[in-house]
Amino acid sequence: MPDKLMRLRRSESVPEPPRPVMLAIAGDSAAGKTTLTRGIAEALGADRAIALCVDDYHRYDRAERRGVPFTVLNPECNYISVMEQHLQLLALGRPILKPVYDHSTGTLTRPVLVDPREFVIVEGLLPLHTKLARACFDIAVYLDPPEEIRREWKLRRDCAERGYTPDQVLAELDRREPESAAYIRPQRQWADISVRFAPVAGHQAPGGTPLSAEILLRPTVQHPDLTHVLTDDDRRTVHLKLIRDSDGRPVDALHVHGYAPREDSQIVEKAIWEQLSNGSSLPDKLGEYAEGRRSEPLAIAQLLLLWHLLEARS
Amino acid sequence: MPDKLMRLRRSESVPEPPRPVMLAIAGDSAAGKTTLTRGIAEALGADRAIALCVDDYHRYDRAERRGVPFTVLNPECNYISVMEQHLQLLALGRPILKPVYDHSTGTLTRPVLVDPREFVIVEGLLPLHTKLARACFDIAVYLDPPEEIRREWKLRRDCAERGYTPDQVLAELDRREPESAAYIRPQRQWADISVRFAPVAGHQAPGGTPLSAEILLRPTVQHPDLTHVLTDDDRRTVHLKLIRDSDGRPVDALHVHGYAPREDSQIVEKAIWEQLSNGSSLPDKLGEYAEGRRSEPLAIAQLLLLWHLLEARS
Repeated sequence: MPDKLMRLRRSESVPEPPRPVMLAIAGDSAAGKTTLTRGIAEALGADRAIALCVDDYHRYDRAERRGVPFTVLNPECNYISVMEQHLQLLALGRPILKPVYDHSTGTLTRPVLVDPREFVIVEGLLPLHTKLARACFDIAVYLDPPEEIRREWKLRRDCAERGYTPDQVLAELDRREPESAAYIRPQRQWADISVRFAPVAGHQAPGGTPLSAEILLRPTVQHPDLTHVLTDDDRRTVHLKLIRDSDGRPVDALHVHGYAPREDSQIVEKAIWEQLSNGSSLPDKLGEYAEGRRSEPLAIAQLLLLWHLLEARS
Repeated sequence: MPDKLMRLRRSESVPEPPRPVMLAIAGDSAAGKTTLTRGIAEALGADRAIALCVDDYHRYDRAERRGVPFTVLNPECNYISVMEQHLQLLALGRPILKPVYDHSTGTLTRPVLVDPREFVIVEGLLPLHTKLARACFDIAVYLDPPEEIRREWKLRRDCAERGYTPDQVLAELDRREPESAAYIRPQRQWADISVRFAPVAGHQAPGGTPLSAEILLRPTVQHPDLTHVLTDDDRRTVHLKLIRDSDGRPVDALHVHGYAPREDSQIVEKAIWEQLSNGSSLPDKLGEYAEGRRSEPLAIAQLLLLWHLLEARS
């Protein structure tokens, strides 16, 4: 009986597990979600953090999708209510049996058990699409690279790792564009932090220089105070500027130039880290965006998210 | 934030779906669960009832099980906490993405969405194993055929439908016996109704006579009152007897002989059906246990469960 169940759930016989801190990293396909996630998850360690992708709640496999009038970006193409349910369960510290989509075969396959740790990092195309899903997160991030950069990244990845030809990837990008505009990009408005990796306009960096980052810090959560170490002098490689976002909302924009020397970014990293309520040593392996290649802007973005995760715990 | 989530869940923005009536049909492999379930589900119709099997929460597929020291009957071999979670969600009227085990290949495959209807019938090996799982059901049934009958049924089914040889099935039955004793059969104590289909001891029925049923009605739920139509005269083909169960607990035992003529069982069926709070026409297709073969004892067991389902709704 539901009554019996309600009584049991209210009683102590079903103890509440500890509630993890939940971080969302939303963004379009190949926007850099996995790269950002990896460094954070590794810095926390597998015993404290688990990262998962919520792009596997597909209602149709690849063959079936040929018969439906939308792409995987469309909420209609996904069991969004099950994704919401699973996010709630994770936020309550409970395990889920997560569906799995195999990109190499385009089929839905054996689900996996995801047992939340102290920190749960959720990346995906649509984690901020609904109000209930958004309510599950302590911090929400949106990755917002310029479209031409994202197209380049997607071409490179999908050809190298997913066995597509360049023409197939370009056609797919065009086919997806209306749904990117309708469902993916609107999630930016719900992010506490929006990150744009891009070349600095008008600045000719030498080849191999990592991209710069513009990190928008919305006052929807409490960020570490950087005003005492940074000015809005944009000749500095790292600077902080109060601006209006495209929708008119006030926001702090933290710029980190790709050519920022390690010493400059260390100043910012220290300033962030010393504002942690519970002292903890500064992680030193952040910022890796490819085998052996390091980016100061990425390191700072990751450190900032680590600060938020640890701070939410204290 | 969990706080944000809690607020949202308490608020009206997440409306509560209607709560289905939940029926559990537990029992060992080949105990007759699917046969009992099918008639009930068909009588209610696919728009009002959904039946599902909860034996697919396997932690290991067939190949992996060769390396573990237990059979699928062992709770350790299954994600029991996910089964509990899914039962709770169904009891609350919410959809689940249920794992699927493919008997023909021995692999875990694409999960399916199960969206609860007004009535949810859950059959399986372990649905009554834990307190939390039991709390999800309005009515719990245990199927308790004599072991020699169940072995015969399992031999016939697993050879005909699952591609095993008789020797393989017999060896598997022996291998499973300790875990049947440890985990499956103890669930009988939690059932509101325990059903045993068996030949009547000492009675030589002509070949092709369906098995008789002993239906134990525990006073843990309110059953239809049959004392005014039935006596404990065991020369009658249908009779009701107050007995002590093997554990000493008092229980009503409804006996329906396999050779009961249709007229006798109709008396009982009418007596059950007229005690429904909301009148509804008597279902007429119950009792089919094989293509074109009908059993009065099975029909009565199914009708009794239908009565419970409809009564729990009113």
